[in-house]
Amino acid sequence: MSEEETGAKGSVTIIGLGPGDPRLLTESARIALDRAQDLIGYIPYVARVPEREGLVRHASDNRVEVDRARHALELAMSGRRVAVVSGGDPGVFAMAAAVFEAVEQGPADWRNLTIEVEPGITAMLAAAARLGAPLGGDFCAISLSDNLKPWDVVTARLEAVLRAGLSIALYNPISSARPWQLGRALALAAEILAPSTPVIFARAVTRPDEALRVLTLEEARTAPADMATMVIIGAPTTRLIERDGRLPFVYTPRSVTA
Amino acid sequence: MSEEETGAKGSVTIIGLGPGDPRLLTESARIALDRAQDLIGYIPYVARVPEREGLVRHASDNRVEVDRARHALELAMSGRRVAVVSGGDPGVFAMAAAVFEAVEQGPADWRNLTIEVEPGITAMLAAAARLGAPLGGDFCAISLSDNLKPWDVVTARLEAVLRAGLSIALYNPISSARPWQLGRALALAAEILAPSTPVIFARAVTRPDEALRVLTLEEARTAPADMATMVIIGAPTTRLIERDGRLPFVYTPRSVTA
Repeated sequence: MSEEETGAKGSVTIIGLGPGDPRLLTESARIALDRAQDLIGYIPYVARVPEREGLVRHASDNRVEVDRARHALELAMSGRRVAVVSGGDPGVFAMAAAVFEAVEQGPADWRNLTIEVEPGITAMLAAAARLGAPLGGDFCAISLSDNLKPWDVVTARLEAVLRAGLSIALYNPISSARPWQLGRALALAAEILAPSTPVIFARAVTRPDEALRVLTLEEARTAPADMATMVIIGAPTTRLIERDGRLPFVYTPRSVTA
Repeated sequence: MSEEETGAKGSVTIIGLGPGDPRLLTESARIALDRAQDLIGYIPYVARVPEREGLVRHASDNRVEVDRARHALELAMSGRRVAVVSGGDPGVFAMAAAVFEAVEQGPADWRNLTIEVEPGITAMLAAAARLGAPLGGDFCAISLSDNLKPWDVVTARLEAVLRAGLSIALYNPISSARPWQLGRALALAAEILAPSTPVIFARAVTRPDEALRVLTLEEARTAPADMATMVIIGAPTTRLIERDGRLPFVYTPRSVTA
């Protein structure tokens, strides 16, 4: 969409930085970063983008997503080319929804801005790729954060997808403000799935401190996790392929028998 | 994993080519393509990779995924560096699960091969990015193909996730061999969701013949679709932001109220 069409000079591009390894960035995301005049995002994501002349950096703390989104939109209205960065994919529990919330609630002329989303490799797909194909059948992505939705909604959704036989990627599994949610989610899974169901704890995937664990559901219930951990609960059909001296492959076959 | 560690010379890398635009390939996937000696995949995906000296191309028709996977593993056992390509992400209804199925069923020494997965931008996230953030809350990915799972399983899963309030990305929505499944899925959705629920039909996303439509569920039930169409059914919370003379933004807020 050109400037002539929109009538506005500025733009907001919401960019997915992928899981961490800079080689997992798309070329399109890199081009968008190179064109930006302002860079907005949570501190560790802004830190991933190399400094360069002409790029103004606005790093902010966590949990201020809508303020950050408004800031981006205001800068764009003043004519700036703004990049908002998220880890992973910006459309998956990240900044894209926050920007569109701000647009909907904001002044009418924000709607005429050029606002684009550059997709990225989201954490669940990066983690899955490191271990095989655990999301090879039907699957879902559920955030365990109850900042923005009641815990009852989280558990109702979990129970539905557990009973339906989907693989489940849990985003935001744990933090100092949410210490017990992951344990409750795994306890619920244990009521429905076999104790031997594979569960992946994939920490800091593709980053220097990456740590991958393949556990049983029984083991997972007491295993440590942190904010950087992606948890994938296998489906009833998910299988392990054991290997000598290495982590097993984990995959979910494409077939389901009745 | 080095050759010394595995004892095998060959390798299989299962590579996600993304939705179509070559700028949506990751740098890591491009490096893996450049290193490959053999290229294996469904005809249109192999066609996306430029020819070069030293790259042997093995394009095959659809629906022979496990044969193709075995061929890749046999070539790797003979010492070749093999790239298996998928559109989108290879771990999402694509070749990664087929390769691991073949490994599990094959000779024991296939397990000692170096087998890696290069993630890619999967169709649902590419489509979501073109329109806003329709997958900004909890969501799922379900294949409508009943080649490999009974239709009763498909409908039970759809009903569960529809009632649980997730956004739903439908892969393999329609083909000449599966002409009625999408209509049934949308009819089921209409029993549970409001007729005004946003539904996205995103065809050939990021390719020259891209066609994006934002429909109501009511309209979607009679709208044309084909094999290249990604269908995203909004959640009950999914919203439209109307714009003058352009497609609306579609987004699912991060918040859910009780």
